Amino acid sequence: MNWSRRHLLSIEELSKEEIEHILDNAFSFKEVLKRSIKKVPALRGKTVVNLFFEPSTRTLISFSLAEKHLSADSINVSTKSSSVMKGETLLDTAKNIESMKTDMVVVRHNSEGAAKFLAEHLNSNVINAGDGTHEHPTQALLDFMTIKEIYKDLKKLKVLILGDILHSRVARSLLWGFMKYKTDVTLCAPPTLMPLYLNDFNIKIEYDIDKAIKNKDVIYILRMQLERQETGLFPSLREYIKDFSLTYERFLMIKNRSIIMHPGPINRGVELDGTVADSEKSVILEQVTNGVATRMAILYLLNGGRNNE
Amino acid sequence: MNWSRRHLLSIEELSKEEIEHILDNAFSFKEVLKRSIKKVPALRGKTVVNLFFEPSTRTLISFSLAEKHLSADSINVSTKSSSVMKGETLLDTAKNIESMKTDMVVVRHNSEGAAKFLAEHLNSNVINAGDGTHEHPTQALLDFMTIKEIYKDLKKLKVLILGDILHSRVARSLLWGFMKYKTDVTLCAPPTLMPLYLNDFNIKIEYDIDKAIKNKDVIYILRMQLERQETGLFPSLREYIKDFSLTYERFLMIKNRSIIMHPGPINRGVELDGTVADSEKSVILEQVTNGVATRMAILYLLNGGRNNE
Amino acid sequence: MNWSRRHLLSIEELSKEEIEHILDNAFSFKEVLKRSIKKVPALRGKTVVNLFFEPSTRTLISFSLAEKHLSADSINVSTKSSSVMKGETLLDTAKNIESMKTDMVVVRHNSEGAAKFLAEHLNSNVINAGDGTHEHPTQALLDFMTIKEIYKDLKKLKVLILGDILHSRVARSLLWGFMKYKTDVTLCAPPTLMPLYLNDFNIKIEYDIDKAIKNKDVIYILRMQLERQETGLFPSLREYIKDFSLTYERFLMIKNRSIIMHPGPINRGVELDGTVADSEKSVILEQVTNGVATRMAILYLLNGGRNNE
Repeated sequence: MNWSRRHLLSIEELSKEEIEHILDNAFSFKEVLKRSIKKVPALRGKTVVNLFFEPSTRTLISFSLAEKHLSADSINVSTKSSSVMKGETLLDTAKNIESMKTDMVVVRHNSEGAAKFLAEHLNSNVINAGDGTHEHPTQALLDFMTIKEIYKDLKKLKVLILGDILHSRVARSLLWGFMKYKTDVTLCAPPTLMPLYLNDFNIKIEYDIDKAIKNKDVIYILRMQLERQETGLFPSLREYIKDFSLTYERFLMIKNRSIIMHPGPINRGVELDGTVADSEKSVILEQVTNGVATRMAILYLLNGGRNNE
Repeated sequence: MNWSRRHLLSIEELSKEEIEHILDNAFSFKEVLKRSIKKVPALRGKTVVNLFFEPSTRTLISFSLAEKHLSADSINVSTKSSSVMKGETLLDTAKNIESMKTDMVVVRHNSEGAAKFLAEHLNSNVINAGDGTHEHPTQALLDFMTIKEIYKDLKKLKVLILGDILHSRVARSLLWGFMKYKTDVTLCAPPTLMPLYLNDFNIKIEYDIDKAIKNKDVIYILRMQLERQETGLFPSLREYIKDFSLTYERFLMIKNRSIIMHPGPINRGVELDGTVADSEKSVILEQVTNGVATRMAILYLLNGGRNNE
Repeated sequence: MNWSRRHLLSIEELSKEEIEHILDNAFSFKEVLKRSIKKVPALRGKTVVNLFFEPSTRTLISFSLAEKHLSADSINVSTKSSSVMKGETLLDTAKNIESMKTDMVVVRHNSEGAAKFLAEHLNSNVINAGDGTHEHPTQALLDFMTIKEIYKDLKKLKVLILGDILHSRVARSLLWGFMKYKTDVTLCAPPTLMPLYLNDFNIKIEYDIDKAIKNKDVIYILRMQLERQETGLFPSLREYIKDFSLTYERFLMIKNRSIIMHPGPINRGVELDGTVADSEKSVILEQVTNGVATRMAILYLLNGGRNNE
């Protein structure tokens, strides 16, 4: 297909064909990562700014590596959101950085819509690396890549998403994607952490984890944000583990040919048992590898899909 | 001309010819910034250390980009000044970094004379990226470049510098430069923020902003350092805005062919109105672009003006 | 010799021949550092992660420069150890970084054995940049290189190590190395800072500094960790200086052909006088230069000793 998009802002806006095109490129770049010299000149002389208003060591390293493998010059700007006042100043910051003749901006921000807002006002290519509780599209794309490595067709799968759906931008991005693939999705969470927006999606809801995990091809466990426990929405940690953790006992009940996914970092003993994370069914580290390949594909496509050699 | 200087420490020490030579090179490098591949090999295999004892995201990014565009290897060292005890330890830190066989040091420090002190004791080329309230020469050079893009001859201009002159190293560097160009300069500030050193310069002083802004070709607005408000030197914010802010009403009174400048970051609604910053008369973002080009020119000249190809 | 080691974890595990082989390579790389273009393509397309769980500006800069001179892509990850819970999570962090297809990990950690633990669980090459009070092998290697530049044969030397031996991983690495060279080593420290493990080594102990400094070819002064003063093990600062500092008076009593070493950063007026640090006998800054060369040699050898050109 002919890629024409200048920004990557959400899974919602992508067509299934666009998702497939990104994944095709990601599989090619994964081959580059297997080489002894992991470097292609696609973005040589281009400047990418990683503008992170929320800390995120993993996502930042993953993007940085993707940029270096593509020979881009990359700059990290980490700003505490407290020093940014309103959207206006976010724009001033971004306009200033763009005025330094940078080509692409990877933005992580705690406000929903921050990436879209920048895309509307900048000439640079903008990549959403997570905006509030809205979307985290590169995470979902690397997840789809990981699932496709195991199962060819996403349509025929039964997927469970387990945990704090309400606050999860990862869950939102996954749901938009699975909807496009017409995947059979079930959600399982404490009632207080189940969002209201689900009318938009054709999804099953199951509050009993022991029923929920049965006959699933993919069990996607969300990270328990321990710092959110004080909001009153969460049960106690002990109750949460009892009712919603993928313990080793429950792990023994899941389908034989099934995979365990998690966006990381994992809390061993909380949302899943350590032995489950380390089991043969776990593809959690493969997700991490695919993250670099996916981000390389996105940077490459937004830059016009040209190899600067 | 033949460039012979090994360091860039102040505008005071530069001749008008040297300033012009830097600007000529900066205009050439600005052309590089317009290319698709913004990279020249001038500093390949050279190591530049950005040694920042004061935080400054913008200046640091601008230097980092300039270094990357010139193919230098650059290292950022950010140290809280509280951990540095006296000039002795500043020297130990710098001597250690130089012993790692680095070639150039860009230094930002809260003590006046820090850059000169390092230049006297190191073999590396030293660039002053701001030393206390003394000078900020690369800022002034990018400002002169921006003015020259609009007006050919600085001598024939009427310039207003508005705001906290007392604490501003930018103002000092500008004044030294404008004096060399014999530019007609007026200062406008609250009396408590007007410095005593002005006897050195041939400058007009005007405390009434409405008179000061009349018939000026360049209105250069300094940043209001909100954190300095508690020193007793500042009027209340409300009074400051009433008496010294470039509001939209005042903006309507300025000369038709006039430009608005600001070293950034701007406080919208404080030292100038947001609509003024975004107006067609504002060249604030052009200053940011020229900052990268100016810094490339300085790094290039201090390295001997050679292209390592 | 044929280098076969995949990790650099300690001096204890190295044979004298291996140490000599690293130093031979380090001397070659020091020649590269004297060139105008300090860059060789040995690690082009390789990714090195500097994973620092303890802050260490100097060691981090030294490794970063070594990596850049070898054309590696390098990523710095600084994590406060407080956010790392137990070895399990250290492993999760490292496994995640490795899953991003990185090639080498340089690790600094406050727990003894952290580097070895990672080496046992990762496929990457692991370099110990300091683990608790255990070892700091790259520091000892750069020290041996510096001594060999002055004296050809380490065996025939009389070495004094002076200061807080108990808490010093540098001292442990030095002792393992000197033992292999059969160097004549004396330790001098307050009794509370003299370790118990010394039975392992064939070492002289001398509590009187004025006797200890006599007739030594090398006086190696350890850094006084001022923050450890409150542990009760330390005498008051005034007493320490009186009894164990290399003052200028004592400096006048040392052997004519003798060198002063220190791993840095130095506390002038505490463990040594500033004039001693700046004297012709001091090789402290040469140690810093040799640090970059030594680290280049180690990175190069662990990568297989190939030049990727």
